[in-house]
Amino acid sequence: MVFSRETYVSRRRHLRETVGEGVIVLFGNADSPINYPANAYHFRQDSTFMYYTGLNREGLALVIDCDNEKEYLLGNDIDLDDIVWMGFTPSVHDLAESCGISNSGPMCQLNKFIVPGLANGSTHILPPYRYDNLLMLVETTGLSSAELRCKSSLKLIKAVIDQRAVKTDAEIVEIEKACVVGYEMHVAAMRMCCAGVTEREIAGAIEGISLSQGGGFSFLPIVSTHGEIAHGFPRPERLEPGRLLLVDAGAETLSCYCSDNTRVTPVNGRFDSRQRDIYSIVLSAHDRVAEIARPGLKWRDAHFEAARVMTEGMKQIGLLHGDTEEILAAGAHAIAFTHGLGHMMGMDVHDMEGLGQVYVGFDEEVQPQLDQFGTNFLRCGRRLQPGFVMTDEPGLYFIPQLIDAWRAEGKFKQFINYDKFEDFKDFGGIRLEDDLLITEAGNRILGPHIPITIEEVEEVAGTGL
Amino acid sequence: MVFSRETYVSRRRHLRETVGEGVIVLFGNADSPINYPANAYHFRQDSTFMYYTGLNREGLALVIDCDNEKEYLLGNDIDLDDIVWMGFTPSVHDLAESCGISNSGPMCQLNKFIVPGLANGSTHILPPYRYDNLLMLVETTGLSSAELRCKSSLKLIKAVIDQRAVKTDAEIVEIEKACVVGYEMHVAAMRMCCAGVTEREIAGAIEGISLSQGGGFSFLPIVSTHGEIAHGFPRPERLEPGRLLLVDAGAETLSCYCSDNTRVTPVNGRFDSRQRDIYSIVLSAHDRVAEIARPGLKWRDAHFEAARVMTEGMKQIGLLHGDTEEILAAGAHAIAFTHGLGHMMGMDVHDMEGLGQVYVGFDEEVQPQLDQFGTNFLRCGRRLQPGFVMTDEPGLYFIPQLIDAWRAEGKFKQFINYDKFEDFKDFGGIRLEDDLLITEAGNRILGPHIPITIEEVEEVAGTGL
Repeated sequence: MVFSRETYVSRRRHLRETVGEGVIVLFGNADSPINYPANAYHFRQDSTFMYYTGLNREGLALVIDCDNEKEYLLGNDIDLDDIVWMGFTPSVHDLAESCGISNSGPMCQLNKFIVPGLANGSTHILPPYRYDNLLMLVETTGLSSAELRCKSSLKLIKAVIDQRAVKTDAEIVEIEKACVVGYEMHVAAMRMCCAGVTEREIAGAIEGISLSQGGGFSFLPIVSTHGEIAHGFPRPERLEPGRLLLVDAGAETLSCYCSDNTRVTPVNGRFDSRQRDIYSIVLSAHDRVAEIARPGLKWRDAHFEAARVMTEGMKQIGLLHGDTEEILAAGAHAIAFTHGLGHMMGMDVHDMEGLGQVYVGFDEEVQPQLDQFGTNFLRCGRRLQPGFVMTDEPGLYFIPQLIDAWRAEGKFKQFINYDKFEDFKDFGGIRLEDDLLITEAGNRILGPHIPITIEEVEEVAGTGL
Repeated sequence: MVFSRETYVSRRRHLRETVGEGVIVLFGNADSPINYPANAYHFRQDSTFMYYTGLNREGLALVIDCDNEKEYLLGNDIDLDDIVWMGFTPSVHDLAESCGISNSGPMCQLNKFIVPGLANGSTHILPPYRYDNLLMLVETTGLSSAELRCKSSLKLIKAVIDQRAVKTDAEIVEIEKACVVGYEMHVAAMRMCCAGVTEREIAGAIEGISLSQGGGFSFLPIVSTHGEIAHGFPRPERLEPGRLLLVDAGAETLSCYCSDNTRVTPVNGRFDSRQRDIYSIVLSAHDRVAEIARPGLKWRDAHFEAARVMTEGMKQIGLLHGDTEEILAAGAHAIAFTHGLGHMMGMDVHDMEGLGQVYVGFDEEVQPQLDQFGTNFLRCGRRLQPGFVMTDEPGLYFIPQLIDAWRAEGKFKQFINYDKFEDFKDFGGIRLEDDLLITEAGNRILGPHIPITIEEVEEVAGTGL
């Protein structure tokens, strides 16, 4: 376990006191099958289960009985046959003891905590996202998966978010370990970036680094000369001179803390003038956010500040025209800035996304704005607090299908110079991303400095491993 | 698609003719969530779906209506929002056309083929192993997961096994591409193997190679100085001098064909005399199987021939005593040779294991022998045919918990020299594995020759990348 036993005991005590009544059930993850039952992906523990137990083993569940102030760790022990195949592992009883849980038992005891507690609302669960857990719940409760998805406890969701959103110093140490590995991944990708290398070669190399030095990737690396595709996965094709390579990748520690950065490297080793223009605009937005992010700032305002900087930039090179504030209010900038500025990061790279972004990133003061394209992908809008970790990741993308569709509609034609956009349909896209820790004084970028200015990137690009 | 459209058309025609009546439904795989719904593992298509369509995209299903000789590809098309995030992908209609399927439609049409066909037995499905597919079946049919597991069609299972078990020359070309990557992985691991390096560093490096040069690993690499644990996953601890490093790893091609090899390297770069003894015994068994494997040989006999060679060897160094045939008949050799000789390999590293090993590896002539420890892990026993690909992977393991348990029972004490086994409790384990293609003339080991003799291994060990 990465933290002390007392850390987990006190995290659970806090949760129990916040939720106050009923029974909390937190499911750990099991192995996830690839192409037959016994062939599994890399095991990844559920982040919330990990947060409250520190136990990185499959097939466990945590039960906290708030009414009786009792805790149980449930799981099945292994036998001699398992030892032959899997080696010796501690008993569930010993695992429970290691993180300060007083009671343990076999997994079959779970039923009594779930049925009828889910029916009468006295059992609190989080939204299930692994289908094995969901299937188990469907079969033990007789409820449908749609019904079960509505049975998540808002009280529990909000209590977990409140705890996990504010990172302690000890958690920041873990995140910065992930950032060190992320730094190695990004610098390796920049060094490998030259014509003739394939996207997959680079992606494989950096995944290898994340596995060698930590717990693997925090999400499948995006390694693409089509940076305009937000989640463009690496292809076997060779990098072509003149293109930009976008790498969005992060590492995880064995304790399940993440990093997440994006860099863009010219395949030629040098940015051409059009690439410099767009890169400089995105970098200005990135830097502006790092300048202003501090406790009390609404993240939605940071998003629009980044959009403002990029709108001004796009006006200067003739992509947009008109009044900046009108452009922003209409959402015309989203033809190129198609997503939100950034998200919380922690034990999940999109931290706690599975609990519902509407609860993680918004509150009564700041509500999601779903009616405006681009802003509808804003994953967080609420006021920043010390201990939040946010990704600062503005980007500009030239998506031919989107340009064509909007042009055909005549959408925002008073603001958008579609003829100029035609010239950029072969450009691709640029995103630059760092992880900001919100501090009392403002913020700081986590991890080692990954080359980001045009000069820094050109110095490293294509220099070889 | 790796093979011609005609290949997939004729594979499906053959399947339809073999099954003869009713409706066949083959599920493709979907993305598999890691720690929240939108964060997915590397996508891996279902092997059988891939075999009959060549389509490596998530969220598809194939329906073959045997009665009406009609085929359908079902799946949902993407919209502009998806294009922004995922890029352009072909329509389901175009995917169907690319592999010669005449009809296509949205996934919601699947219901009509499943209900009531599963109830009356006219719909043929394979055993579901992905929980999302299983949950979908539970919710559309009203059957429990236990009932559904019994609804698999034996006729379909056997028809698929008959086709997939015999590899064509074109498939062997693909397997040998995977073997080339597997060779790179194993040689890299041998070169990296020296005191101070961690198991995870080596595992990460070879996973990186598998991702860079192909479609990733065919199973999570086993990289362990505790070779006695059959599935010992890499730890962050540093390799200690005097130990042996066992690496069992393979690659996949982007077309989903696998490799699977095991090598053992001394951390010191040189085997000591006890290690030489055990290594030589295992290598003799490996070589003996490669000598005798040919069409008509029962794989169970090959298993016992390997066991015979290793029993003789263990007798020579005093681990066992008594009559070899009596030892084999009793199963006393399984104190050290704890598993079966090998399994089929192809598009799954344990080929078609998800369809049921009892059908894949056995037939009316050769039935599984579940009552003898060690032999109960024999995954295949049937007569070999040209085109089968088998792993030849004998091993000897010294598992302290197993030795203690058997000694306490006095099990096979007439054959086992427990005092001698005590001396080996710190040894670990050795397995050596290659992939044999059964040919008309006998067999050949697939892929480039990976160092395997003591001299070859010592020449490469620890020489650095």
